Amino acid sequence: MKLALITGGTRGIGKAVADILREEYKVVTVARSSEADEPGNLSDSKFRAYLVEKYTPDIFVNNAALLSYNFEEMIQTNGMAAVDLLFKFYNKMPNGTIINVSSISAEKNFLAREPQIRIAYATAKKYLKDTSLSLAYSKNKPIKVMCISPAATDTDMIKPISNNYVPVEEHYTNYNYYNSICMTRPYEVANIIKWMIEQPEWIVIPELVIDNHYEKSVNW
Amino acid sequence: MKLALITGGTRGIGKAVADILREEYKVVTVARSSEADEPGNLSDSKFRAYLVEKYTPDIFVNNAALLSYNFEEMIQTNGMAAVDLLFKFYNKMPNGTIINVSSISAEKNFLAREPQIRIAYATAKKYLKDTSLSLAYSKNKPIKVMCISPAATDTDMIKPISNNYVPVEEHYTNYNYYNSICMTRPYEVANIIKWMIEQPEWIVIPELVIDNHYEKSVNW
Amino acid sequence: MKLALITGGTRGIGKAVADILREEYKVVTVARSSEADEPGNLSDSKFRAYLVEKYTPDIFVNNAALLSYNFEEMIQTNGMAAVDLLFKFYNKMPNGTIINVSSISAEKNFLAREPQIRIAYATAKKYLKDTSLSLAYSKNKPIKVMCISPAATDTDMIKPISNNYVPVEEHYTNYNYYNSICMTRPYEVANIIKWMIEQPEWIVIPELVIDNHYEKSVNW
Amino acid sequence: MKLALITGGTRGIGKAVADILREEYKVVTVARSSEADEPGNLSDSKFRAYLVEKYTPDIFVNNAALLSYNFEEMIQTNGMAAVDLLFKFYNKMPNGTIINVSSISAEKNFLAREPQIRIAYATAKKYLKDTSLSLAYSKNKPIKVMCISPAATDTDMIKPISNNYVPVEEHYTNYNYYNSICMTRPYEVANIIKWMIEQPEWIVIPELVIDNHYEKSVNW
Repeated sequence: MKLALITGGTRGIGKAVADILREEYKVVTVARSSEADEPGNLSDSKFRAYLVEKYTPDIFVNNAALLSYNFEEMIQTNGMAAVDLLFKFYNKMPNGTIINVSSISAEKNFLAREPQIRIAYATAKKYLKDTSLSLAYSKNKPIKVMCISPAATDTDMIKPISNNYVPVEEHYTNYNYYNSICMTRPYEVANIIKWMIEQPEWIVIPELVIDNHYEKSVNW
Repeated sequence: MKLALITGGTRGIGKAVADILREEYKVVTVARSSEADEPGNLSDSKFRAYLVEKYTPDIFVNNAALLSYNFEEMIQTNGMAAVDLLFKFYNKMPNGTIINVSSISAEKNFLAREPQIRIAYATAKKYLKDTSLSLAYSKNKPIKVMCISPAATDTDMIKPISNNYVPVEEHYTNYNYYNSICMTRPYEVANIIKWMIEQPEWIVIPELVIDNHYEKSVNW
Repeated sequence: MKLALITGGTRGIGKAVADILREEYKVVTVARSSEADEPGNLSDSKFRAYLVEKYTPDIFVNNAALLSYNFEEMIQTNGMAAVDLLFKFYNKMPNGTIINVSSISAEKNFLAREPQIRIAYATAKKYLKDTSLSLAYSKNKPIKVMCISPAATDTDMIKPISNNYVPVEEHYTNYNYYNSICMTRPYEVANIIKWMIEQPEWIVIPELVIDNHYEKSVNW
Repeated sequence: MKLALITGGTRGIGKAVADILREEYKVVTVARSSEADEPGNLSDSKFRAYLVEKYTPDIFVNNAALLSYNFEEMIQTNGMAAVDLLFKFYNKMPNGTIINVSSISAEKNFLAREPQIRIAYATAKKYLKDTSLSLAYSKNKPIKVMCISPAATDTDMIKPISNNYVPVEEHYTNYNYYNSICMTRPYEVANIIKWMIEQPEWIVIPELVIDNHYEKSVNW
């Protein structure tokens, strides 16, 4: 049975990916939570070295991230640790697939007038995406390096900055709620990741962005 | 029956999309060829105005492009005409989906050391992509504005610059042919476009890039 | 005496550049205005061909642009015509310097939530900038291809969208006017262009962006 | 006397900036070398905290970087540490100027077919540049946040990957040496940084790229 290693695999999108891949892969989750198969803090260089030493995954889902007013923590986990793991597993894996989970904020927020917490989050995710694309286009190994940039997804992480984000059902039920942003569900993002993984051997999706509708439209 | 308008719809990716959408949509193709439902030259402002006046498509596939050593022709058709049609149909359509067909060259070739024909092609396609993303993220209308950037695809267009591009079958049969670039097939790109169109109402894919493998790997 | 050809050379930034270069160069201005040395409409392919046939400038300042609710006009003049002239003079000139005048809107506005007039303006200017950078980095001719992206400048062009843009003096005099955006003066941009042109032979400035302060700060 | 804090200030571009600013500023240099006013390793979170606690510079030149086959070291120093210092000094300084020193490789190399050492270097520098631009455009403080991206400069750092880079003099003396890349001199980059710092109060240069000529041209 092939091995899928998933960072941030106990919550949100990472958990949804773990659940969906478990049908076909041996799944190992990494997270700070004690529920993880490999509990630990990815911003710790030794923990990253331990993981790279121990595992040679067929699928590596580079997903762990946090949202915090401690910018240094975000820069370390979402940026440095994710990019470092990407290089290390890219160099260790003989083949297979790497899915980097960036963010739509890396597409459009990072140059707009945004509060600093969004800038710090977006530029770290953009760093991950740029490195993902660079390795994908370098083409010096038969590894599929792909990057998905989900929009606001209905997870715990988004709650601190999310008062106008609402679940899909609420968005469509409350017909007067024009200011709501409809969040994608974690399993929907996970299904798209699965679709990317299942492409034929000769097709790579180096970049896929998901957005969600801002407005409810009556005759849409 | 809903209407799908497809520019460049008589050959290559556009034809494959027309064939696949015809099962569910009334399809109108636009191209310079007499085989098109609406034959004409899209770089002609009057022809564009005629199309916009006559049609209000549910799906607009903004696909027409050419590859030519007449750079002005490429700038006019691939850049100006495509961007102008995008604005015009975006403003006319009350809702629905627009698929802009850009190119992977707009992702990675335009800042590298490339011959001018590739630069002129890539920057025009990047212009289309940037405008597509801008309208998608402006979110002022319930229209899904999406952009797909295919890699080298097995069409007539690529032949003049393609001596090391080969079809999938040849790529995998000739085990010593490491310098070949395996081309995607038009129907594969068309199926991905169909997948984008068929997303649930609340999911938009503003950007999706397809790449193909450079090398054949034995144990891939 | 060396020749400097300046499109949009009768008003705004273009006029300021013409005034400043006239001290050392024979200056030829191109514009729709009858005051231009070469009056004509750059969106006309034949007029562009005429200019390219007639002139081989040492300095080509690719500056003409307009701001209009007729998006097609902007796409044609600011995008297509400017990019076409860039390729044509790049290929004709044996050496020398090309200065493309893009816009800061091409840096930061094109992916934000902007009204369509700003999107159409910004993406056309981004098209010019991307092509400028691509030719600069292709390095196949000893031509210095440079791009400057000015912020809001105190010219006639900006007036229709400019109610909160104010001249430098007003910005600093009215101490309570915190919502004003301080505009750069045309001659300041022209002096920076002159600085770019005067760099030593081995130094190229492929990209320079000018921004202006949003807020007045007391102890700045 | 105003204070200028310069990381990487004992060698290369940083030293040239220190030398040039010392005429008007009290200069404090930070580097791993014992020659620095503040010797230490910037990838150490505590050393960064110490610097931010101790200094409130008028000019902060965020310049320290290294080139190494230990990618983790580059990711930590060139990416994480530089971005973290940028946020921390941006938040501590009441006004003044921050100059982030990125690299032309962040402009054009990171998506081309490059060896991994260049990718790791370029994407970390791009991370710094993207964060610099984001803070510059957020405009919520009267701080001038600027970014300069020099081309290959004649410093010790470039030697390991530089067999075809040559000093300006050699480039112009050896008339048959067409494959050489002419390096900028550190003091030339420092003078451009000084020019950026000396702009009038209302003019910011959020982005300036320096490139150098690839080819020697006889009649250039």
